[in-house]
Amino acid sequence: MLLKDIKNPQDIKSLSIEELEDLADQMRQAILFRTSNIGGHVSPNLGAVEIITAMHYVFNAPEDKLVYDVSHQAFAHKMLTGRAEGYINPEKFYDVDEYTYPEESPEYDIFYAGHTSPSVSLCTGLAKARELKKENHRIVALIGDGSLSGGEALEGLNIGGNVKGNFIVIINDNQMAIAPNFGAMYRSLQALRETDGTSDNNIFKAFGWDYIYLSEGNDMKACIEVLERVKDIDHPIVVHVNTQKGKGYVPAEKYREEFHSHNPYDIATGNLKEISEGESYSNVLKDFLLQKLEDDKDLLIVSSATPEEFGFMEKERELAGKQFIDVDIAEQSGVSVMSGAARGGAKVVYPICATFMQRAYDQLIEDWAMDNSPALLPVLLSGIRGINDKTHLGFWDIPFLSSMPEIIYLAPANVEELKAMLEWGYRQDQYKVAVRVPTYSFEHSDYDVDDDYSDINKIKIIRKGERVAIIGAGDFYVKAKQVADLLKQNKDINATLINPRFVSGVDVNLLNELKKDHELVVTIEDGSLEGGFGERIASVLGPSDLRVMNFGLAKKFENRYRTKDLEAKNNLLPEQIANQIIGALS
Amino acid sequence: MLLKDIKNPQDIKSLSIEELEDLADQMRQAILFRTSNIGGHVSPNLGAVEIITAMHYVFNAPEDKLVYDVSHQAFAHKMLTGRAEGYINPEKFYDVDEYTYPEESPEYDIFYAGHTSPSVSLCTGLAKARELKKENHRIVALIGDGSLSGGEALEGLNIGGNVKGNFIVIINDNQMAIAPNFGAMYRSLQALRETDGTSDNNIFKAFGWDYIYLSEGNDMKACIEVLERVKDIDHPIVVHVNTQKGKGYVPAEKYREEFHSHNPYDIATGNLKEISEGESYSNVLKDFLLQKLEDDKDLLIVSSATPEEFGFMEKERELAGKQFIDVDIAEQSGVSVMSGAARGGAKVVYPICATFMQRAYDQLIEDWAMDNSPALLPVLLSGIRGINDKTHLGFWDIPFLSSMPEIIYLAPANVEELKAMLEWGYRQDQYKVAVRVPTYSFEHSDYDVDDDYSDINKIKIIRKGERVAIIGAGDFYVKAKQVADLLKQNKDINATLINPRFVSGVDVNLLNELKKDHELVVTIEDGSLEGGFGERIASVLGPSDLRVMNFGLAKKFENRYRTKDLEAKNNLLPEQIANQIIGALS
Repeated sequence: MLLKDIKNPQDIKSLSIEELEDLADQMRQAILFRTSNIGGHVSPNLGAVEIITAMHYVFNAPEDKLVYDVSHQAFAHKMLTGRAEGYINPEKFYDVDEYTYPEESPEYDIFYAGHTSPSVSLCTGLAKARELKKENHRIVALIGDGSLSGGEALEGLNIGGNVKGNFIVIINDNQMAIAPNFGAMYRSLQALRETDGTSDNNIFKAFGWDYIYLSEGNDMKACIEVLERVKDIDHPIVVHVNTQKGKGYVPAEKYREEFHSHNPYDIATGNLKEISEGESYSNVLKDFLLQKLEDDKDLLIVSSATPEEFGFMEKERELAGKQFIDVDIAEQSGVSVMSGAARGGAKVVYPICATFMQRAYDQLIEDWAMDNSPALLPVLLSGIRGINDKTHLGFWDIPFLSSMPEIIYLAPANVEELKAMLEWGYRQDQYKVAVRVPTYSFEHSDYDVDDDYSDINKIKIIRKGERVAIIGAGDFYVKAKQVADLLKQNKDINATLINPRFVSGVDVNLLNELKKDHELVVTIEDGSLEGGFGERIASVLGPSDLRVMNFGLAKKFENRYRTKDLEAKNNLLPEQIANQIIGALS
Repeated sequence: MLLKDIKNPQDIKSLSIEELEDLADQMRQAILFRTSNIGGHVSPNLGAVEIITAMHYVFNAPEDKLVYDVSHQAFAHKMLTGRAEGYINPEKFYDVDEYTYPEESPEYDIFYAGHTSPSVSLCTGLAKARELKKENHRIVALIGDGSLSGGEALEGLNIGGNVKGNFIVIINDNQMAIAPNFGAMYRSLQALRETDGTSDNNIFKAFGWDYIYLSEGNDMKACIEVLERVKDIDHPIVVHVNTQKGKGYVPAEKYREEFHSHNPYDIATGNLKEISEGESYSNVLKDFLLQKLEDDKDLLIVSSATPEEFGFMEKERELAGKQFIDVDIAEQSGVSVMSGAARGGAKVVYPICATFMQRAYDQLIEDWAMDNSPALLPVLLSGIRGINDKTHLGFWDIPFLSSMPEIIYLAPANVEELKAMLEWGYRQDQYKVAVRVPTYSFEHSDYDVDDDYSDINKIKIIRKGERVAIIGAGDFYVKAKQVADLLKQNKDINATLINPRFVSGVDVNLLNELKKDHELVVTIEDGSLEGGFGERIASVLGPSDLRVMNFGLAKKFENRYRTKDLEAKNNLLPEQIANQIIGALS
């Protein structure tokens, strides 16, 4: 049977094992075809082909509920539920999302679950609804071993172990998160694998679950058999399945970390189609950390399972040795480790992705902001050019961090300022400092960058003008400059150009000074307007006659947008901003 | 030795077991003396007297680091570190905080840790700093069995199991959180207790830890002996100690849930000194839920270990039966269960405390706001009159929730509006609705309350006037009214009085209409200004000539304040607001 002819999971029910294996081969080719062309998650999907095929063969979706944790592993699911074209037809690539996506398939994609670890809890909710409504469908979650390290997965095992009726949690154990797993519980998983599931030391049983082990998780027949065995079970059970990340594609089997999620590559060699230039903000951060490692034995670098985002692959991690700790996919613990180590006298740097920082709000406010634990938190992948998947947007980090007392959030506008802010944030021992690593465009400074930011909230006037002051925050300073240039060119307006540097507070004195010779203040920020930087300025100037216009993103989920389209929609193109200013001034 | 003479832990090092037991008796009396007079955490502290005394007897604080998870159990620690006066001298009660408090004792109180579950991760950070700095002090965490259900505690076990050197985590197993523990892992803890720690099914070993059990956790000698045994261990070990919550005070032993944290009571009888009136917003919520339980078999009530905050004690929970689920202290899972059950067709209500909601930011945005899972989230204990401990402030919930797309946050101004909003939020099946349960003052409505809120963000004009419009959000609507009355009385100004109802969005049309005959818009909200409701209004009106003044709380941590003092400090007294308005208008 050809993959392209599969319209829904019913189509595979009558296939033989050999035919299913042939289908699995086709799906692997399709995964490679898509990801080699447009990039995406490679090795997690290659390893999960058999178990997902078996799920659809044994269970009856959509009546039975199949839920995918951190759903970037669900390509096979998508292909078996009528969306194969998204993997074999280049014209349809962008019709199919990277993650399970309820708008794309309300029947088969139950949740987004783009972040790790919610699946067991989400299914516990489904099970409670089933109980109340006296339904009797099956509930199945597929979750990776890496995702188990996220606290919510463990909370989920605790509460899910009490579910009434059928509940099957399949642990897809490929011995990796994005990077290797580090935590001590992975020794227990290893013991289970080494004893064919018979070790007494069984974390799933300790959480109150029934348990079964399958060593051959890339064997179609074995996968089907194990699921047939548990299919009609009347209580919660963990099916622990040993799989190989990257299975069936040599480069992905070999470079499992690199091929977790990959840019477009050449299938024959596994080489990237385009090598990115050396100059990037993330390299600046990496070089900064490597330099500090040489200079300072008290430095501790914390990572929560995404060390590749700041260039710390195996080589750099080995170099750092005990000065590096990966807390697995556990941002809550990441922040507490940062705070604890700082309290203990270490110099701590914890580079964190904006979207995953969302998991540590409580720890950031209770264990960092409140405590006397100066440390440095570089925030990665924020803003329009962060990640453009709906589940991974970096639009909310300014509202998020700047609502917390005692956290200083710095937004550098260019590479020199990024370096200076990292240096200061590292050197000082008084403040809790977050630095928004730019993503928008790689810029060099055309003004003298300060090396001391202890005058908190102090704005920098780059060019003094009159009538209108344009404040461009962080990597949107470049837009402020473009707007100012347009105003000069088109209307001979000499705008005041400002780099606020701080997005967690307002320079009230300077704003008051602007009242003398300005009638309008304009703010531009690379993130959601509501709760953001610009609104604070509007509030401070609210009682005065000085008017304010805030530019930024509307409070909306977006998905797989083109940068320019999203900017146009939000009036963020320099011409749009300039025109609105001209309208307001006349 | 008299408790009052203890200046630091050195003072107990030479005492005999009998003398330590006598000291424990004195500490129990002191705990009862303080809490019966000013309220506070009773039974967790009574149960932990021996183990904490043993900690200070065996270890050498402050060189050795003693960390208390959800530090409301640390009264004995405070008494043994020079702060006994706070428990025996009524004049000093308020000099000593309810939680460990680094400002109070920088030497002995290492972290606040007022929320549950961070201790193991914080200590992992301390241990990394110790490793880098080549120090060799001991690191000890005390954590309750209830706190284990919070994801970060489990994350902490995963990463903490890899710590190099001495690391002792004492599990204070009193078989309770605030309410009983519900999750399946508690069966494993029970099995360990029933087998004197020998059960193969050992969750701590499964997380990679060494393990030792003590059944007599309220026996001073046994506590000292077990800690002496592990004192100089060179790797991570869990010391699992069985204790009795409320130990030594009959009413607290019997009513363990009620005496977790208690208002002032009569020691002889255990009866409350003042019975609160029946009328309260929390009772309105309780009655609403009880009524819905009768009417609707699809209702699921979710709680995360604080059912008492909406009046669901044992009786109500039994009544609800399978329509009630407590996820233990796991707000992340609480939100995912809510979302999953809603997706499965249940009607879900999840009352959550503002301060603990902080732990579920990621799930609220990724698993609720994003998903098609209409449900009702009553937010408890927000605002100035929520909880006034620094670690439990309810100041940030508006910035927090209203920065998320697709969540409707309603703020009722009085009891009738609360009822109407709960009813609508429950009845509708389109929106994700949070309702800010008022805390400021119990008010009845003097206007007709609407029963439909599907006209999202629609402001309600209560009284149309001119020149100044006063928008009082939620339970601060009452302040707006007082201010309007003062303006009328003192300056014959007929202010427009507005109840916005929605704090997650802005009624742009209405604001534009105000431009016609108003020169000033004033917002008043019961929470932090930065990122809050008022700033959104300032932003929308920024480009216009209509001026704006925002009143609310400065972005600051506060602790054990008097409401009126905090209001005065933030210009929130009606006279202060009225005077500022008069100043601005003239």
